[in-house]
Amino acid sequence: MHHSTPFHVPVRTIMTPGPVEVDPRVRQAMSNSILGQFDPSFTSLMNETMKLLRLVLQTTNHWTFPIDGTSRAGIEAMLCSVIEEGDIVLVPSFGRFGGLLTEIAERCGADVQVMTCEWGDVFDPDDVINEMKRVKPKVVAIVHGDTSTGRIQPLKEIGYACREMDVLLLVDAVATVGGTEVNTDEWMIDGLITGTQKCLSVPAGMAPLTYNERIEDILLQRKSIEKGLATKEQLLSSNFERRIRSNYFDLSQLQDYWSPARLNHHTEATSMLYGLYEGLRLILEEGLEARFKRHRVNERALVAGIEAMGLELFGHSENKLPTVTCVTIPDGVNGDSVRKMLLDDFGIEIASSFGPLHGKIWRIGTMGYSCQQRNILLTLGALEAVLTRHDVKVNVGEGVQAALDVYQQKERISKANDG
Amino acid sequence: MHHSTPFHVPVRTIMTPGPVEVDPRVRQAMSNSILGQFDPSFTSLMNETMKLLRLVLQTTNHWTFPIDGTSRAGIEAMLCSVIEEGDIVLVPSFGRFGGLLTEIAERCGADVQVMTCEWGDVFDPDDVINEMKRVKPKVVAIVHGDTSTGRIQPLKEIGYACREMDVLLLVDAVATVGGTEVNTDEWMIDGLITGTQKCLSVPAGMAPLTYNERIEDILLQRKSIEKGLATKEQLLSSNFERRIRSNYFDLSQLQDYWSPARLNHHTEATSMLYGLYEGLRLILEEGLEARFKRHRVNERALVAGIEAMGLELFGHSENKLPTVTCVTIPDGVNGDSVRKMLLDDFGIEIASSFGPLHGKIWRIGTMGYSCQQRNILLTLGALEAVLTRHDVKVNVGEGVQAALDVYQQKERISKANDG
Repeated sequence: MHHSTPFHVPVRTIMTPGPVEVDPRVRQAMSNSILGQFDPSFTSLMNETMKLLRLVLQTTNHWTFPIDGTSRAGIEAMLCSVIEEGDIVLVPSFGRFGGLLTEIAERCGADVQVMTCEWGDVFDPDDVINEMKRVKPKVVAIVHGDTSTGRIQPLKEIGYACREMDVLLLVDAVATVGGTEVNTDEWMIDGLITGTQKCLSVPAGMAPLTYNERIEDILLQRKSIEKGLATKEQLLSSNFERRIRSNYFDLSQLQDYWSPARLNHHTEATSMLYGLYEGLRLILEEGLEARFKRHRVNERALVAGIEAMGLELFGHSENKLPTVTCVTIPDGVNGDSVRKMLLDDFGIEIASSFGPLHGKIWRIGTMGYSCQQRNILLTLGALEAVLTRHDVKVNVGEGVQAALDVYQQKERISKANDG
Repeated sequence: MHHSTPFHVPVRTIMTPGPVEVDPRVRQAMSNSILGQFDPSFTSLMNETMKLLRLVLQTTNHWTFPIDGTSRAGIEAMLCSVIEEGDIVLVPSFGRFGGLLTEIAERCGADVQVMTCEWGDVFDPDDVINEMKRVKPKVVAIVHGDTSTGRIQPLKEIGYACREMDVLLLVDAVATVGGTEVNTDEWMIDGLITGTQKCLSVPAGMAPLTYNERIEDILLQRKSIEKGLATKEQLLSSNFERRIRSNYFDLSQLQDYWSPARLNHHTEATSMLYGLYEGLRLILEEGLEARFKRHRVNERALVAGIEAMGLELFGHSENKLPTVTCVTIPDGVNGDSVRKMLLDDFGIEIASSFGPLHGKIWRIGTMGYSCQQRNILLTLGALEAVLTRHDVKVNVGEGVQAALDVYQQKERISKANDG
């Protein structure tokens, strides 16, 4: 008999841009026993999940379901199902995840036209619209909130322009859905992808997405039935020339699995779906507006605390992503040493960064279940102590007090409103 | 506030070829709180999981880790990372999942050469070897156990021939790993994929795989660093011409994430990894030999019961997959009506079938935690009762008795061996 070590999960306060903490109700839901994929109890859960997802994604799109994979699995499913060899795809890229859209679109065989700006900026929608006029893309693929720089890109004007110019707009909203306003239909987004492990506050491993009939039209043109399931007639009538390059990410086959036909594709990830459903219920019980407000208040408290401590934020406040706060690492400080001490001594995790910002900023997430007063206050207090141990001069005691001021002011406003 | 319905998971005995029931220890493990993906507690769990997976897959391959997606995600990751446009791929296909290998290889741009046989047969290894000599493939992709027909393909001779002829052997062992002998290294399999939701008895959503240095060599030739993470020098030195078509399934990038470099790719599926680790521990605590024996005994009891009842098995016993038993639906009986009554009245699920066998056979799985004496006996009793209600003449009472005979004989042998 083999003796392996039982694993032990230490207590953590996770203040990164994901994965984040998860409500105990979600974890309990995931510990339920298994149901067969065609068991009516399970297929009705699939249908109910689609309904709740539509509410959270603010869409009436019929096709609204999760991909069984992490966020980028959803992004790749959307891109590779829509993009064909030689299609012109415009990617306005303002951070690492614009780079990811670029490379996925390239791998799909697209003619990718990239617009870039400094990491820390976003685009003026008019600049994007002008570039659309110039390159005449079939698709604009863009990130809504890029966690690598902590920036949020306004999408509404771009969405309207895309519809007017008959361009498809595909949006990576992994960092924003469930934490700040994302209005799929009103902003005229054709295809939108999110992930579970950020503001939806469900463990990593699923990527909910939604798309409208403009995209479904393309899927139906590219559709084929899987070999081994297809009849001879179906194989003969399939359009193999335009076939989607991936089987796993073939949305035309996936939507059959998520339809009453239940045409077998993969085996739906049972326990993850339990978790997603419960996570969506929690979001809707809280209410989208209340949830966005909670995210704003906690962000404001965190920012007030960081600034009162004497630290500097990275980037401009007008395009700041409300769910991620980027803090400039003070000169001469080893950012990773600070993060390590926070984790080892306080059990609190914050994130480093990528590419040109690596070693220059810390990133603190305020997402989902992790986004709560207790976590903000404990993080500010711990960060102050750790910085002091790293010989950084901070305004001792002021960070936590400034955050408390924000929370108490909010309470006073709430009381005044009640009165 | 939105009021959605809390979901309710009814008690089920799942006797399908997956997803199957899961040991409560696995479900409890999955309900643990979240850890950050770069938290040392989590990265050490990733490393430990690789170690246990090597033992279960009977390999010394360093690269042995799960893909975050269901089984076919692992198959696609292996195929699309190895196969390049125009490569000759030989697929000896004896069921639906050979069809799946065919279509994935086609979508990778391969020149796919398919060998087929009747659904219900497997290949004589010599026939495969002769076809290899004729078509001179770069890759042979083959299923080990095809659940659609309940057949198992001998692989050892094919493995030896592939190595001799310098052909890569890629094997879909989704239906066999953890339930019957799969000896990756001894059979000279270059790349092997399995899934969690069958004999590993972990919820659907992960696809463990392993590959050797012959495959790693190809990956390194095709490797590129992700845009947004790469330095300018890395981008310039990347080989984009041979770049793998998928980002999510790019094994050259995934192996960096599963290495000490921990180069960020996706966010590893936290709770699923907890479940996989605990599931692997359970397998190794039981011991591979003991586990395979348990699967054989329960299969024998099921088969004895089915035959004693007067039903017929589909296919030949010499190539029968030990983890799936296919039963011919008696003439004039509506197979789906029988399955529905089994589920509705007894809470027991068995499976229908696909393609040419649809409506002709039922498929009963004996996999993982579902593969236990209690389940076999309850299923036989319930099936008899349901068939009687469907006016099928069965040998009343004999199915359960025949299965009990098998179990008691096994006990007598065990006692005799002890004495």
